[in-house]
Amino acid sequence: MGSCSAGRPGWHWACVLSYLGRSKDQSQLGAPPSAMVSKPLSNKHPGLWKMLTVAMCVALVGCLQAQELRGHVSIVLLGATGDLAKKYLWQGLFQLYLDEVGKDHSFSFHGAALTAPEQGWKLMAKALESLSCPSDMAPSHCAELKDQFLRLSQYRQLKTAEDYRTLSKDIEAQVKQEDLREAGRIFYFSVPPFAYVDIARNINSSCRPGPGAWLRVVFEKPFGHDHLSAQQLATELGSFFQEEEMYRVDHYLGKQAVAQILPFRDQNRKALDGLWNRHHVERVEIIMKETVDAEGRISFYEEYGVIRDVLQNHLTEILMLVAMELPLNVSSSAAVLQHKLEAFRGLRGLNKGSAVVGQYQAYSAQARRELQKPEGFHSLTPTFAGVLVHVDSLRWEGVPFTLMSGKALDERVGYVRVLFKNQAFCIQHERHWAPEQSPCLPRQIIFHIGHGELSHPAILVSRNLFRPSLPAHSWAEVQERPGLRVLGRPLSDFYAYSPLRERDAYSILLSHIFHGRKESFITTENLLASWDFWTPLLDSLAHEVPRLYPGGADTGCLLDLELNGGHLSFSQQQPEQLVPGPGSAPKPSDFQVLRARYRESPLISAWPEELISRLASDIEASALQAVQHFGKFHLALSGGSSPIALFQQLAMGHYSFPWAHTHLWLVDERCVPLSDPDSNFQGLQAHLLQHIRLPYYNIHPMPVHLHQRLCAEEDQGAQTYAGEISALVANSSFDLVLLGMGTDGHTASLFPQSPTGLDGEQLVVLTQSPFRPHQRMSLSLPLINRAKKVAVLVMGRTKRDITMLVSRVGQEPRKWPISGVLPSSGQLVWYMDYEAFLG
Amino acid sequence: MGSCSAGRPGWHWACVLSYLGRSKDQSQLGAPPSAMVSKPLSNKHPGLWKMLTVAMCVALVGCLQAQELRGHVSIVLLGATGDLAKKYLWQGLFQLYLDEVGKDHSFSFHGAALTAPEQGWKLMAKALESLSCPSDMAPSHCAELKDQFLRLSQYRQLKTAEDYRTLSKDIEAQVKQEDLREAGRIFYFSVPPFAYVDIARNINSSCRPGPGAWLRVVFEKPFGHDHLSAQQLATELGSFFQEEEMYRVDHYLGKQAVAQILPFRDQNRKALDGLWNRHHVERVEIIMKETVDAEGRISFYEEYGVIRDVLQNHLTEILMLVAMELPLNVSSSAAVLQHKLEAFRGLRGLNKGSAVVGQYQAYSAQARRELQKPEGFHSLTPTFAGVLVHVDSLRWEGVPFTLMSGKALDERVGYVRVLFKNQAFCIQHERHWAPEQSPCLPRQIIFHIGHGELSHPAILVSRNLFRPSLPAHSWAEVQERPGLRVLGRPLSDFYAYSPLRERDAYSILLSHIFHGRKESFITTENLLASWDFWTPLLDSLAHEVPRLYPGGADTGCLLDLELNGGHLSFSQQQPEQLVPGPGSAPKPSDFQVLRARYRESPLISAWPEELISRLASDIEASALQAVQHFGKFHLALSGGSSPIALFQQLAMGHYSFPWAHTHLWLVDERCVPLSDPDSNFQGLQAHLLQHIRLPYYNIHPMPVHLHQRLCAEEDQGAQTYAGEISALVANSSFDLVLLGMGTDGHTASLFPQSPTGLDGEQLVVLTQSPFRPHQRMSLSLPLINRAKKVAVLVMGRTKRDITMLVSRVGQEPRKWPISGVLPSSGQLVWYMDYEAFLG
Repeated sequence: MGSCSAGRPGWHWACVLSYLGRSKDQSQLGAPPSAMVSKPLSNKHPGLWKMLTVAMCVALVGCLQAQELRGHVSIVLLGATGDLAKKYLWQGLFQLYLDEVGKDHSFSFHGAALTAPEQGWKLMAKALESLSCPSDMAPSHCAELKDQFLRLSQYRQLKTAEDYRTLSKDIEAQVKQEDLREAGRIFYFSVPPFAYVDIARNINSSCRPGPGAWLRVVFEKPFGHDHLSAQQLATELGSFFQEEEMYRVDHYLGKQAVAQILPFRDQNRKALDGLWNRHHVERVEIIMKETVDAEGRISFYEEYGVIRDVLQNHLTEILMLVAMELPLNVSSSAAVLQHKLEAFRGLRGLNKGSAVVGQYQAYSAQARRELQKPEGFHSLTPTFAGVLVHVDSLRWEGVPFTLMSGKALDERVGYVRVLFKNQAFCIQHERHWAPEQSPCLPRQIIFHIGHGELSHPAILVSRNLFRPSLPAHSWAEVQERPGLRVLGRPLSDFYAYSPLRERDAYSILLSHIFHGRKESFITTENLLASWDFWTPLLDSLAHEVPRLYPGGADTGCLLDLELNGGHLSFSQQQPEQLVPGPGSAPKPSDFQVLRARYRESPLISAWPEELISRLASDIEASALQAVQHFGKFHLALSGGSSPIALFQQLAMGHYSFPWAHTHLWLVDERCVPLSDPDSNFQGLQAHLLQHIRLPYYNIHPMPVHLHQRLCAEEDQGAQTYAGEISALVANSSFDLVLLGMGTDGHTASLFPQSPTGLDGEQLVVLTQSPFRPHQRMSLSLPLINRAKKVAVLVMGRTKRDITMLVSRVGQEPRKWPISGVLPSSGQLVWYMDYEAFLG
Repeated sequence: MGSCSAGRPGWHWACVLSYLGRSKDQSQLGAPPSAMVSKPLSNKHPGLWKMLTVAMCVALVGCLQAQELRGHVSIVLLGATGDLAKKYLWQGLFQLYLDEVGKDHSFSFHGAALTAPEQGWKLMAKALESLSCPSDMAPSHCAELKDQFLRLSQYRQLKTAEDYRTLSKDIEAQVKQEDLREAGRIFYFSVPPFAYVDIARNINSSCRPGPGAWLRVVFEKPFGHDHLSAQQLATELGSFFQEEEMYRVDHYLGKQAVAQILPFRDQNRKALDGLWNRHHVERVEIIMKETVDAEGRISFYEEYGVIRDVLQNHLTEILMLVAMELPLNVSSSAAVLQHKLEAFRGLRGLNKGSAVVGQYQAYSAQARRELQKPEGFHSLTPTFAGVLVHVDSLRWEGVPFTLMSGKALDERVGYVRVLFKNQAFCIQHERHWAPEQSPCLPRQIIFHIGHGELSHPAILVSRNLFRPSLPAHSWAEVQERPGLRVLGRPLSDFYAYSPLRERDAYSILLSHIFHGRKESFITTENLLASWDFWTPLLDSLAHEVPRLYPGGADTGCLLDLELNGGHLSFSQQQPEQLVPGPGSAPKPSDFQVLRARYRESPLISAWPEELISRLASDIEASALQAVQHFGKFHLALSGGSSPIALFQQLAMGHYSFPWAHTHLWLVDERCVPLSDPDSNFQGLQAHLLQHIRLPYYNIHPMPVHLHQRLCAEEDQGAQTYAGEISALVANSSFDLVLLGMGTDGHTASLFPQSPTGLDGEQLVVLTQSPFRPHQRMSLSLPLINRAKKVAVLVMGRTKRDITMLVSRVGQEPRKWPISGVLPSSGQLVWYMDYEAFLG
């Protein structure tokens, strides 16, 4: 073996291929009868093979000046007898061989596992028996190639450090013996994650190829359980491998319709240029529905659940391909990965309101059975999740991305659907509409990943959009199938393309690994960015009871989702309500608002939502009245967390609010730049200003940052603000001042014992807070007390004690500044939620 | 006649009704055999009637203590023999009689016209013959009531002032003779508008009722041809009548589905509260399609066209009912009218881009025929119009309201459709969706005005929204009609209600006039607000060539509309293009951009759209580069009209623009408050700032308004701005300064011979402009020349001469300030459109 190449370094089996006929399709070409095979499965007849090899070498001497072999590649499949290997990986390696045979490399395939050689070999041989060729390959040719592949494949036990050293030595020996150049080694980790680190250590210490040859290690998910564990695993693996050596597989990135997303966006740039943005896209759905349940896999599933199993990886990766800015050169791995990472940074943080979870009814019983749990055990693991994602970029602002996956649903299907806004109005009756012409038929682009009624991967573009461009050598138009509908529309509505040949995701990814195309894999940064994004949601859902659903078609509308602002909820509020429409859910107004008195002023107390709603209405009423009488409304707002809900309510729910005539002032400010996240103004900007249209010149932030300094006495910021107030607000009497109350009895930024602001002439003062940042600017008590109306908003259980205390004290602003709030001719109203007021 | 009432002032025919049986439905009740009828049609047999009357009076003496008559109402129908009268008004008056008979008033009906008595009486009698009763009234009873109505009706010629005086005297005499109290007089102007003023003068001078009785005058459209003529007519009529006396009819407001809009919104407040706003409404369509064309009416139509004929009045009124804020009390006319007027104020101004117009192909030939025009005559009168309306309120911001009407279309139908956003995602396959449950089926509320497949008025609410509340005594659920679809959905998708009895619009409006319910009529303010809104569009379309369409179903997609941002266009760019989709229309990039040099700097010249697009891209590129290197981009922008398109392009088309890191500065400013429409900042705010998310503290308007003064030297605004620039902009070197060039060679606000700003140390200066407002603040030339890049944008034919001139002069900033622009170490680029550059 290898005797003919010994004296002729240029010799390789590409020669044989050239001889056999280069005009045929590459993948159908024959492979050399030999290459380097150490302990091959075909080594039962070494003599025969050797003879044949020699004979062909002699016959093909004329090939010697042909292509140079780029080198030899050893592929080690760890976990070679496992499920994934049996189902996909061996077939994927065989496909790689079929694709690459006759090109520039020679191969050896090493199946490895913990099992002893004899037994392991048997198991592996069984997996290899079922290898298949593309359907358009002649059976005899297939058999021939399969035979070659088997001869290049061997099994070996990898258990001890010694085993790894031996493997490496054997590879080196082979290469040397056959006088080849080693190109690289691929180690494919198809093993449980707990085994990663040991194997990685062994590979790093014993199996690295020599200089000039590359090492690629391939990992299968899960890559951690949350950000912390993913970070730990990444750090450990990072201590053994360089970033460029690691290939983390998300096999969805190898699915044909998914792998085509970026090329599609690239090849249809001109048509998509004006469409792929918030002005035109109504929504994006990224969906993976399964009919199977988790039975038999509960021990894994119970640890992970659907979000970790599907959303954090597969659906998020797809989301990135849709949402990311398209690099100029989509075949640059670096550019693609960089843009993807930037898209991650644009994801708006998830919170509990972003997601709903469900669990099929039989799950807990299955879990009890498989995990030997007691009768009373109920799992909280979600088997269904819908998540609403927003991308905070100018391109996607406001466009909802819905990610959804579940087990035991009514159908198996996976797709990405980009639905465009209907911005047309069709003059004729719909009976005259035609899919090619009517802008009123739905306009969508669907990346159909698989299954469903269409049953194969496809890319569909509504005919009223544009005729897409797809690579003609690998994608072709789908034949019309009468009666077939895709997502509610007849197939004839679409330009529909499918791959000429369906290829398994793993075969595509193995080819990318072989070619070093990293853009189809999860970099460490990408992985951590994804966990960064998902972990807060997972944490907040940890104790959430998922909605139970019967599974299959019986689930009905139980899991239907409603997107509302930034939130996602089940459409049906209660499973027993069949028509949920507006009004059927209990509304805040159904609760009683308590009216009483507090410190001899009116008190309004309610549950938080109703309290905020009431306060917002009262502010609006004041505003309308002021604008009607004086043409303007001067409103001074406090910072802090309590008013945020109020700002949101005012921004979203009050359509008649006379914003154009409202002036906004700050009650107090922290001495930080206005753009600092700690700035009160910043909260106002984020939760109110950006949602309404308040003229720029009606906004009056406190001048805490003048001449690049913060609250320097000599910059006279407080005096400037006082001057602005005097100039614009009649009698310096605000129409409404909104205050809060601290647990120490402070209000505005007037703290107990403050030397300024509690009395005197000054309208605006600099003060000191016991909390960071210490320096503050604040309206003074005398100014506050000139207001026509003062509302004090107090919310939350932590305020209970001070509420009690202040209810009993007199007017002692030096001890409790809030007790000094008493408008001289205006009205004071207390707004307290039940927790603050009643505990 | 009248003999029984003579001695018994309390007697009236309501007695008779009481006697005949009050338990029955009022409208089916009999009317008295007599009342006061002067020159009645039945006066052929006065003797017989008199006997009968006396007999009944005697029999019904027991009624005398029953209800008091509120008085007598005389209704004068001017144009009693005209088309409208024959078709609707007599029937409406008869219906009013049927409704009111037996209630509190007595009536007399005076048909009037210019025709002589004999001939006029004949014509009118013919119209009266065809009066009909509701279908559920017994024929004999109908005949009886009709007979009574005829006896109360008379014809009289009204031609001279004397005729009017006689009419009034006759009414007074009648009232006196029968010892009634006069309640009021209604004059219905069913005459051409040119006759209005004369008649109005006569009524005012001769026909006013005495004290305590009201006068109501009713006008039929057209109410003018544009704002000016409407204003003139209103002023003239206003010199004769009080506002409360005038009832301008828009008969659409009497159509049952339209008249129900406000009551529907009121009675379903709870359900609609959260839905009737921009967060939930996707679009509103207000549609009136006709199949007929204008043949036979061209002399009228040619003057008016579809916008004046249908959109300015009917569709606008409906728009108001949908868009207005709902008053607390919808039965308060004053509140309704006030809210409607406020809604008018919220309409965003229309411009040419808001509308498209069409004309059916046969129109011009018809016009030539009917108007005896020469062969070459082609009319520009639109017979089709689509208009995109935006309501600038917080409730409706961004929601497109599409108004559309046309003649010779494929079907006759009128409706208002409020389509709600689909904010749901349904988990199950659509085969499981049910109209009552699925939030994914379309959600809409349709006010079906008439015709179409449904063929009658109706209000339809998608079952997945809510079950609406409608007045049970007059509206009932529509019976299911298998196969019937409404706007593309099966009827079974809806809760569908129709009026129990179809009533003509005029009968409803006559009833409202009689009851003094002004909310269904067009007040003068309302009318002028409507013309205010429409006139600019009508002016801008005056010379627009409408798109020709074949009419009927042949029209195909030719008139389909595309809503894009604030603009409306035909979906099909060119009639010959069948699939218009993106990419098929020529794009700006298809035109050549000319690159050359101007004043030794690079010049980019192109058509305006491409030029702006190129400049926007160049600015974005500069921004990205600056942010990448320095973390910030300092951009100084000029005001004026040329940059508006640029601002819009930047706001709408550049998704990757790093706004969060961009600081915006002003190149110059007029010394007016920032909120003044003349302020450069105001243009920036309207066209750029409100569309992007630039942090408040990155916006740097010029301080032209300090201490409530404009550009006072002692306020040191220029110095303050210079200080801000020095503090924030490294080396006071802007990354990009955008300039324009005036026809006098000025740039920024640096005018020829300016004593400041052309040289020296000052960074920011106060200057004087030869144009109003004279006072300006401006960056100085030395500051501008410190910029890294200066772009000068010059557009339009008017700049041709100065462009030529400046191309030849040296650096003479005192004569031509623009010639002093030469960045010391930065780059200068000229952007000129072809008109400015090539003339």
